[in-house]
Amino acid sequence: MVSATDYEALTPQTLGARLATVSAVTDILGHAPSDWAIREVGDGNLNLVFIVEAAEQALIVKQALPYVRLVGESWPLPLYRAFYEHHALIRQAKRAQGSVPHVLHYDEGQALIVMEFLRPHKILRRKLIDGEQVAALGSFMGWFCARTAFRGSELSMASADKKADVGLFSGNVAIPAITEALVFTDPYFDAEMNNHTAGLDPVVAALRGDVVLKQKVQRALMKFASNTETMLHGDLHSGSIMATDTDIKVIDPEFAQYGPLGFDLGMMIANFLMSYFSQPAHRDDPAPYQDWILSVIGDAVHSFEAEFTHLWQTERTGMLYPVSLFEDQGQDSTPACTALLREIWADALTFCGIEMHRRCLSLAHNADFEEIEDEALRARLEARNLTMGAALVHQAAELADVAALQNMARTHNTGEYL
Amino acid sequence: MVSATDYEALTPQTLGARLATVSAVTDILGHAPSDWAIREVGDGNLNLVFIVEAAEQALIVKQALPYVRLVGESWPLPLYRAFYEHHALIRQAKRAQGSVPHVLHYDEGQALIVMEFLRPHKILRRKLIDGEQVAALGSFMGWFCARTAFRGSELSMASADKKADVGLFSGNVAIPAITEALVFTDPYFDAEMNNHTAGLDPVVAALRGDVVLKQKVQRALMKFASNTETMLHGDLHSGSIMATDTDIKVIDPEFAQYGPLGFDLGMMIANFLMSYFSQPAHRDDPAPYQDWILSVIGDAVHSFEAEFTHLWQTERTGMLYPVSLFEDQGQDSTPACTALLREIWADALTFCGIEMHRRCLSLAHNADFEEIEDEALRARLEARNLTMGAALVHQAAELADVAALQNMARTHNTGEYL
Repeated sequence: MVSATDYEALTPQTLGARLATVSAVTDILGHAPSDWAIREVGDGNLNLVFIVEAAEQALIVKQALPYVRLVGESWPLPLYRAFYEHHALIRQAKRAQGSVPHVLHYDEGQALIVMEFLRPHKILRRKLIDGEQVAALGSFMGWFCARTAFRGSELSMASADKKADVGLFSGNVAIPAITEALVFTDPYFDAEMNNHTAGLDPVVAALRGDVVLKQKVQRALMKFASNTETMLHGDLHSGSIMATDTDIKVIDPEFAQYGPLGFDLGMMIANFLMSYFSQPAHRDDPAPYQDWILSVIGDAVHSFEAEFTHLWQTERTGMLYPVSLFEDQGQDSTPACTALLREIWADALTFCGIEMHRRCLSLAHNADFEEIEDEALRARLEARNLTMGAALVHQAAELADVAALQNMARTHNTGEYL
Repeated sequence: MVSATDYEALTPQTLGARLATVSAVTDILGHAPSDWAIREVGDGNLNLVFIVEAAEQALIVKQALPYVRLVGESWPLPLYRAFYEHHALIRQAKRAQGSVPHVLHYDEGQALIVMEFLRPHKILRRKLIDGEQVAALGSFMGWFCARTAFRGSELSMASADKKADVGLFSGNVAIPAITEALVFTDPYFDAEMNNHTAGLDPVVAALRGDVVLKQKVQRALMKFASNTETMLHGDLHSGSIMATDTDIKVIDPEFAQYGPLGFDLGMMIANFLMSYFSQPAHRDDPAPYQDWILSVIGDAVHSFEAEFTHLWQTERTGMLYPVSLFEDQGQDSTPACTALLREIWADALTFCGIEMHRRCLSLAHNADFEEIEDEALRARLEARNLTMGAALVHQAAELADVAALQNMARTHNTGEYL
């Protein structure tokens, strides 16, 4: 783990000297740091991010800061998150080949990861705000969620390996604590760091007055904190996806932890739905692009279910649902897979609804809504999003399929809740 | 953790010298090991157990063996289970005061725990076979299960402490693997170490042919392996309880692990039900004692729910269902507690049914049935037990309360399933 003694937050001026002796870097950029162009481009909530360029080559250097960048030094955050991010990237690269940036170098003492520079990729959230389509986005992301979910679970892994990994990741306390507070708790009471758009007060009051909703949210928190079903990305929003028109990569798994099989899928759908509801503020004729977003969600869910079922049928090498109890006795285990997928779907919808709440009510809002300058319009659109979030939490166990989810989104897209 | 280098399996001849320098022992027994009477009395499946006596005083010494005693050296088993047993005993002593034997000394290198000698306590299973009643048995055991479940969860514990503990116990792989195989998997296929009473074949075939049953059992296995809701005893059968007519202690938590809130309760009920179904072989007029056993189950469930609810109302200090979201907003959280108890109940019934199966079909059978010499009678009674086990797994989500469970037991007690 990281010792704080030799850690130093780097700058464009000091980074070159640090990397000059790393062969994985100099093999690509050459041996003369003075020839490298280095700039800090981090726009996230937590870390330093540098682009280091030389001639035609470029690398990304991500370094953890010992505090939450969004808030400042008053909110300390352990450097060990780089350790978990590194471990997560390695696992994701194996489980969903080609889905994450290639890691070139990891420096534990500096909490620093050197990775391939993805270009001309853009953060997906920006593309969604700008109305740009990405080919096969839904099917790729469903595939990513299914592969990492299945292959990180005891459906696939040897139990000894999985338990060792749960032990490893159990050392990560501070990062899950952010999710536990900001996602599952703060939106539902008057927490200090909350903020929401003026005009939303009636909707916020309704959510906080809905004791059954809060009960379901807290049950979901218990699952998030206790159900170590698989290794999660843990923060799979559209800011954690980079894409060109045709290529997609998943980045920033520093919130990786063991958790429920449906968590990543649900969080991702939530971020597509927030993009969906925000569209009327970003373009004059939002309907075509909104239809495309709903099709992405449909593709993602179908792809998730298809890939999960495929892996169930071909790679069920863990101790759960062993072939000795089903196929070896001439019995089909597909209904067991379908039943598990049904539970994953219900969990995903619950997590989805909660994420839709916290991004408008708690600390870290989404640009999809934040960039809407007209506060009244923003409130109207956020109210649709918040109301559908509550409906999802309430109806998670009953909502039949993604077509029902798409219909629910269309209904809320024309609703007036203020 | 245990280093194997200085470990030595002890004997009545070598144990005295080992303990002669341990002040916690000599304070009680005196400084002359030659005056101590030492005998090995272990009759369990795994360990050496010594009684060490001097004058009016006596101690218990439990030492792990590096293999499964029941099977022999061909089945190695890590000595570290004594480490986890020790950690579990310490936690149980705090969470349910007076419920476990007092630990006097722990020797990690020898995988050895010195404990208070419980006398005139008998193993509860023996008392149940002999038809002896224990005052307040159900209410005490329900209280024990509720306290350890609640206080070991994030309803009570600080999340950082709970996560650290999950990490600690994740090092225990071999012991959970026994449960995963013998309890959840082996009964449902022709596993090598299985055995069952002649005549049961039709019932066994029906269980193995019931693909929905096996699906539900495997879902329960996934919960057992993944849902780190609280620290379990992990092996709470009537052989893990010692009692006089009026005093009760819980022993042998070497299967401790993090798992579902309803696991211990369900395993315990299963062992009471197996005693219930075996009674017609142990006495001429079994009905009065059988009624008492059902009353113990009723008391246990009512006590569990009452104590869990009491702790919910008075000790909800963890991050789950925080008062900030309920009471601080003038809202009652009791319905949330009731809903969680309903889920715990369904899980408990599922685990209960599975335990009823494995104790007749897999490796480690119960004396309740094993001591029945008349094989035809044993098969008849075991068939009732196995059939009710399946009914419990199937109906876990619907069975309203413990009265319904008692009625189900009475119905199966007169059923002929062969």
